[in-house]
Amino acid sequence: MPATMKVAVLYGIRDIRVEERPVPEPAPDEVLIRVASVGTCGSDVHYYEHGRIGDFVVEQPLVLGHEPSGVVVARGKDAQRHEIGARVALEPGVPCSVCAECKAGRYNLCPRMRFFGTPPIDGAFCEYVVLREDFAHPVPDELSDDAAGLLEPLSVGVWASRKSRVAPGSRVLITGAGPIGLVATQTARAFGASEVVVTDVNPRRLQVAEELGATATIDVSRESLADAGFEPDVLLECSGVPAAAGQAIRTVARAGRVVLIGMGGDEIPLPLAHVQNFELKVTGTFRYANTWPTAIALAAGGEVDLDRLVTHRFGLDEVEQALTIAGKDDSVIKAVVRA
Amino acid sequence: MPATMKVAVLYGIRDIRVEERPVPEPAPDEVLIRVASVGTCGSDVHYYEHGRIGDFVVEQPLVLGHEPSGVVVARGKDAQRHEIGARVALEPGVPCSVCAECKAGRYNLCPRMRFFGTPPIDGAFCEYVVLREDFAHPVPDELSDDAAGLLEPLSVGVWASRKSRVAPGSRVLITGAGPIGLVATQTARAFGASEVVVTDVNPRRLQVAEELGATATIDVSRESLADAGFEPDVLLECSGVPAAAGQAIRTVARAGRVVLIGMGGDEIPLPLAHVQNFELKVTGTFRYANTWPTAIALAAGGEVDLDRLVTHRFGLDEVEQALTIAGKDDSVIKAVVRA
Amino acid sequence: MPATMKVAVLYGIRDIRVEERPVPEPAPDEVLIRVASVGTCGSDVHYYEHGRIGDFVVEQPLVLGHEPSGVVVARGKDAQRHEIGARVALEPGVPCSVCAECKAGRYNLCPRMRFFGTPPIDGAFCEYVVLREDFAHPVPDELSDDAAGLLEPLSVGVWASRKSRVAPGSRVLITGAGPIGLVATQTARAFGASEVVVTDVNPRRLQVAEELGATATIDVSRESLADAGFEPDVLLECSGVPAAAGQAIRTVARAGRVVLIGMGGDEIPLPLAHVQNFELKVTGTFRYANTWPTAIALAAGGEVDLDRLVTHRFGLDEVEQALTIAGKDDSVIKAVVRA
Amino acid sequence: MPATMKVAVLYGIRDIRVEERPVPEPAPDEVLIRVASVGTCGSDVHYYEHGRIGDFVVEQPLVLGHEPSGVVVARGKDAQRHEIGARVALEPGVPCSVCAECKAGRYNLCPRMRFFGTPPIDGAFCEYVVLREDFAHPVPDELSDDAAGLLEPLSVGVWASRKSRVAPGSRVLITGAGPIGLVATQTARAFGASEVVVTDVNPRRLQVAEELGATATIDVSRESLADAGFEPDVLLECSGVPAAAGQAIRTVARAGRVVLIGMGGDEIPLPLAHVQNFELKVTGTFRYANTWPTAIALAAGGEVDLDRLVTHRFGLDEVEQALTIAGKDDSVIKAVVRA
Repeated sequence: MPATMKVAVLYGIRDIRVEERPVPEPAPDEVLIRVASVGTCGSDVHYYEHGRIGDFVVEQPLVLGHEPSGVVVARGKDAQRHEIGARVALEPGVPCSVCAECKAGRYNLCPRMRFFGTPPIDGAFCEYVVLREDFAHPVPDELSDDAAGLLEPLSVGVWASRKSRVAPGSRVLITGAGPIGLVATQTARAFGASEVVVTDVNPRRLQVAEELGATATIDVSRESLADAGFEPDVLLECSGVPAAAGQAIRTVARAGRVVLIGMGGDEIPLPLAHVQNFELKVTGTFRYANTWPTAIALAAGGEVDLDRLVTHRFGLDEVEQALTIAGKDDSVIKAVVRA
Repeated sequence: MPATMKVAVLYGIRDIRVEERPVPEPAPDEVLIRVASVGTCGSDVHYYEHGRIGDFVVEQPLVLGHEPSGVVVARGKDAQRHEIGARVALEPGVPCSVCAECKAGRYNLCPRMRFFGTPPIDGAFCEYVVLREDFAHPVPDELSDDAAGLLEPLSVGVWASRKSRVAPGSRVLITGAGPIGLVATQTARAFGASEVVVTDVNPRRLQVAEELGATATIDVSRESLADAGFEPDVLLECSGVPAAAGQAIRTVARAGRVVLIGMGGDEIPLPLAHVQNFELKVTGTFRYANTWPTAIALAAGGEVDLDRLVTHRFGLDEVEQALTIAGKDDSVIKAVVRA
Repeated sequence: MPATMKVAVLYGIRDIRVEERPVPEPAPDEVLIRVASVGTCGSDVHYYEHGRIGDFVVEQPLVLGHEPSGVVVARGKDAQRHEIGARVALEPGVPCSVCAECKAGRYNLCPRMRFFGTPPIDGAFCEYVVLREDFAHPVPDELSDDAAGLLEPLSVGVWASRKSRVAPGSRVLITGAGPIGLVATQTARAFGASEVVVTDVNPRRLQVAEELGATATIDVSRESLADAGFEPDVLLECSGVPAAAGQAIRTVARAGRVVLIGMGGDEIPLPLAHVQNFELKVTGTFRYANTWPTAIALAAGGEVDLDRLVTHRFGLDEVEQALTIAGKDDSVIKAVVRA
Repeated sequence: MPATMKVAVLYGIRDIRVEERPVPEPAPDEVLIRVASVGTCGSDVHYYEHGRIGDFVVEQPLVLGHEPSGVVVARGKDAQRHEIGARVALEPGVPCSVCAECKAGRYNLCPRMRFFGTPPIDGAFCEYVVLREDFAHPVPDELSDDAAGLLEPLSVGVWASRKSRVAPGSRVLITGAGPIGLVATQTARAFGASEVVVTDVNPRRLQVAEELGATATIDVSRESLADAGFEPDVLLECSGVPAAAGQAIRTVARAGRVVLIGMGGDEIPLPLAHVQNFELKVTGTFRYANTWPTAIALAAGGEVDLDRLVTHRFGLDEVEQALTIAGKDDSVIKAVVRA
């Protein structure tokens, strides 16, 4: 093991510097992982461009990156789950495991969650990270390093499909064909949805949605959602645009479920009478819990294609370029950093 | 049986006339019921004052009243559930029973629902009504005629407590101490809630809430809800004030449930980040389904007190006075019409 | 319309006679259907061979057959859902629609259910049947007549997968590779199950299970289930052999679900400590409710293959041969009667 | 703090010796608790009389007792939840918190659970115990020391009522009026059950059941359950007698829920056709998860009465007497040991 490693550190808005830091030591229940691939996420771009997301403010140098895969290279003294050399996907948030939320199986709601790349916790744009061994998930050979990292956004889709009880026969509307919309499209199909309609204003993204299983798409820059006449059982809102979310909710069928995944805006105009008269169930998702085994099964079984999402690759010295292009070029679906 | 009966008919805004109409004939699966007591509801008042509620417009003479009790006096040829003379509570909406919603157990969402006192279906401010026999529910002697009628609003509370899974240990916030808030207070307690906090701007109503089981009350004309520091698992929104609803939602704890019962306003400002970060489940209620047996058990067992809600009584000739006073005098909790 | 039709009537044990009867008249809410194809079921065979199933005894001449498809040829005066000429699958049980079970969405548990081919209700081994219009489900052209009939057993599989919450990631054990085991195999996969292991003692049936999506099979005449070491989340018991059911339950993982589908034997030896220590959820299924739309979506979308199950075809004059061969030749998966 | 303490140790069948042992040191996340009261449980009696329960064998000296309350007297260096002097109820099983079951909120199913008084983990028949701080639950002054200890069996009742979704309107059958049957009676009522019928062969216990909220009782030594004609929605089986359990299941109504709580016997004769035809849901319980807050709310609010269960009290020197009398004198409901 080398004593030091290369790390890409966010020092301020649009200011990432690659520097040497000591390789961390795993705690007794942790493993040390040589990072292989790290997906870039819209939240990484947002921290890079704005220095904050809502109440989370970058007040000290921060390492971004929370979609990593890698190889176990050392183990803490009590860590026994993984062999040295095991390829793993990293679930990038470690909860306290002892609070009421954790004990109820909702560890994603743990108030003491430590999540990669969220101030003040460092993420994975570096060569080595430590992680509690039970949050490193073994991946089979069928999965590429990139795909193993992208199990993180896939987990968001799995979580949303679970929450909304997508099943055979479901008609699903997905608003927004960004990376999350595209994993949601795939998970909705994998959960058995009979119809999956995807909206966006970008025809190229809608084309990818069709490749990945959408049964129909709507370019909402050309046709209004209301005019399309689709009445879904389930709405997976991935656009983060409040007005669009409100409009989409108005299309949902009786007893339908709405999951608000996209972030953006303080308030959504919830159509009260429609929610009441149709008894819709509206919820939001915050990350995920207990999704990696399912996500791995779907990716390994070919039900979802994560490699198709990767449009750009960068090295650890190029994190700044990766985040810059991801923020402004809509031909980017997913840029990954190969550490 | 007399050939005709007295009926209070809404002819237009603030125009109710008492007239004679033929006593209706029960269809084969219906019973004829001599009406005993009919509660007045905010929606009756609204039709009386405005001639419409949203898309429901009074376009022809309409009989209001949908909280009735009575006695079975005749039966259609196939109706065998009830003996002549049986005291019954009337569930005032009859669905088609054959559509997808009905077959799924959600008959309240039936698009062909025929609901008392909702245009163009006549209600119960009259001496006799017919009803499909399975929507007439036998009531035990413990229940007064008034209480039997008020099983209808009680059903709204039962439905909301079910939807929000109130149970022992639950901390429940009820916003609004009108008739629905007061039945919701009682059902929340009957479902086992450990804490039930009720808000209103009317101290007299808060006093009644405490009599009926609220563990604490907040006069939000004097103290802000946020300052009160109560963090409920369940919010039963009964005020129908959009801004207040939005504020109340912001107080709900992780994994909490929100039921929007109060009507009013087109949109509620849904606090997106809070709904997401805490993964709240938000829904609305539209009437109820399969609630009468439970409501009867609660009222007969003394877990809820419906007679306490009755503050004013009127005769069938006085429906206009009943609706007038109910609309302007906040000492009225529930005015009932004795037919 | 002809005045009479050909009907295959069970007069007693192993005594079916083809006779002429009047074509029935549809009631106001019914349609008249020209039968196209009717699958034979183990229960038909059982009535044919034994004259009874449990408490259901054939005490008067009975028409068997409850897996029919056909074409709408006439409509009652209030029936408006279907055009004349529409191809339909028949859901063969009509509940009362007004009892507590029906209103709760559990119409399969209706005590007044009238079910095709169950004494004293006649079934579909005939040329024409009437059916309440809402239990005739339109089928798309992709489905053959045989497949449309076999939506009935497919519904059993859909119901079992719903009850046991099969989803992506699920590991499912299916005991018994008869027609129900084979549809359950397909529905488990369609609901997303990652592993579906099927047991039987018949290698040919196990071969078909693999064709239809089983990820592994176990010939339990050669290898014990316990030795196989598979620990399922979900057990769909389709063998109806009490001792085998008991053994299979012992393999189920913590928090696993067990659905007892196979009939046979009065009691199952339930392993108490295992059910307790692992908090298994054990239930049984009785037919199905609200499954046809999902079954149609699965069959039309190619997620399940019903035609593959049809191994033998007979005419209406050959019902006796069909039931005889289905009862003794294990190369029969599904024999259908073309009416 | 003294250096040593008195401990009652089981050395073999009917061989408990009181000896001095060092007072344990709390680990960083633990508290040290001075034990106040410890309930005796049927499983304590069983270990005392038989040296084993199923696969759990007492192979080395063991301290029994898993229903304790006490006072926090010292804290590990990271333990900050409790003040010194805080009165607490002890949840007596500590799971690993990192396995799949724990993360899913089912920590009671953790395969690495360490449970008080279950070989080889020592229990609470002693003066001091250590416990992970999050499993020590603060109790309000309203609760006696004995009642605080008896939150453990109360948790069994809470868990069973949750699992079976007891709610207002439920009709509940409880078979067996031992300590668990008596807490189940109370929790069923607290969850809102309208009818709670309790069976036993001991009239005194049935008398206590009525005091504690049973709406009816059946002495099954004099009247058969079947003859009683009660058709429950929910069966809480607390007798542990396989044949009785099988008979009781046959009385359960359509869509009913059965929870097997009582231990005893290897197999229960599950009535297959009844489970199928009525689609019963049958499960077993293994301890509980996340129940103490609810149990505390119920006991502190007066919805349940735990002190009423205490019929005998002993000192730490008298554990042997306590277990002896609890095992043979059916006037004992609950014997507690005051440490």
